Amino acid sequence: MNTERLHRQIAFILEIDRLKSVLRRTYLVNDPRHENSAEHSWHLAMMTLVLAEHATIEVDLLAVLKMLLVHDIVEIDAGDTYCYDAAGNDGKAAREELAAQRIFGLLPDDQSAELHALWTQFEARETPEAKFAAALDRLMPILHNYHTQGRSWLAHGITSAQVTERNRHAGEGSETLWAYVEEIIADAVKQGYLTEGGSK
Amino acid sequence: MNTERLHRQIAFILEIDRLKSVLRRTYLVNDPRHENSAEHSWHLAMMTLVLAEHATIEVDLLAVLKMLLVHDIVEIDAGDTYCYDAAGNDGKAAREELAAQRIFGLLPDDQSAELHALWTQFEARETPEAKFAAALDRLMPILHNYHTQGRSWLAHGITSAQVTERNRHAGEGSETLWAYVEEIIADAVKQGYLTEGGSK
Repeated sequence: MNTERLHRQIAFILEIDRLKSVLRRTYLVNDPRHENSAEHSWHLAMMTLVLAEHATIEVDLLAVLKMLLVHDIVEIDAGDTYCYDAAGNDGKAAREELAAQRIFGLLPDDQSAELHALWTQFEARETPEAKFAAALDRLMPILHNYHTQGRSWLAHGITSAQVTERNRHAGEGSETLWAYVEEIIADAVKQGYLTEGGSK
Repeated sequence: MNTERLHRQIAFILEIDRLKSVLRRTYLVNDPRHENSAEHSWHLAMMTLVLAEHATIEVDLLAVLKMLLVHDIVEIDAGDTYCYDAAGNDGKAAREELAAQRIFGLLPDDQSAELHALWTQFEARETPEAKFAAALDRLMPILHNYHTQGRSWLAHGITSAQVTERNRHAGEGSETLWAYVEEIIADAVKQGYLTEGGSK
């Protein structure tokens, strides 16, 4: 057994336990608490298994799963940045790159490079797999907001135009799921879960 | 778009949000709260990506990931049964089978059958993938206990013989990881995190 290699792998596994303490703005559907980024990542992985058939271009399921499992790990150092927070998004890329170097750097070099590359691929949103992964990552909080009567949208004064604008790229990964999201947004406005109107 | 099919898929995705509210006996490594089964499932999936090379027989990574993502979903109805609780384990299989039928049954029939079969495969522990998945599922709480100074072991008066006996099958999935677990158990006894002795 290569003890040093195994010890580096275990150190990484213990470190990423911290993702369970990174809270997102969304709430659970049936529980009043905020969602954390680790359970969100599991939920996205499950969503991949169930919704893969809706990808506009057929995707490599394993590649999508790996990206979504890894995509939020940088938040351990960089925090979760609310997608509608323009100021918070300044400098986000640099903060997250440093986080990726430190956290993936705990692993043996070959694995560190592999996971770092998966995260970079997800962020670049160029491959069919990354586009589909991004579409799922956009759909999920919209579902959570809609099924909690817009709790997080209303708390932050988000408008339908902001949701459409911020999430439109989901259509690149899945036209079907984007059409479904547009229906949800329209109904959310009708129900009063989301304010109609332009971006602020 | 097949609207009914998509609506069944979304109903399943919303329902499994409840797994985030099922608490395990283990504690987080750096946070005093109990771990939930959804974030645990994500952590196991990450562990698969990092430790797959230690499987005794080479495994299909996608199959292991799918099984671990799905393996605890039945707990939404059946609850998390503590592995050292002999009484709680009575009737567990029947409770979980009913849960699997209801929850996976929310999906379109083809997907319901696929996810149910993955769960059955995990439980049966016969294929190399299921044996390796089970080994990871055994290693994880031992790591959590060891790195929280045996907090959950001590609270429940668990002995080293119980831990060895209950988890020995992990060696079928990975001899390397089982050898590592045996080192941890020995050191846990030395540190006072685990009582030495036989099963009660």
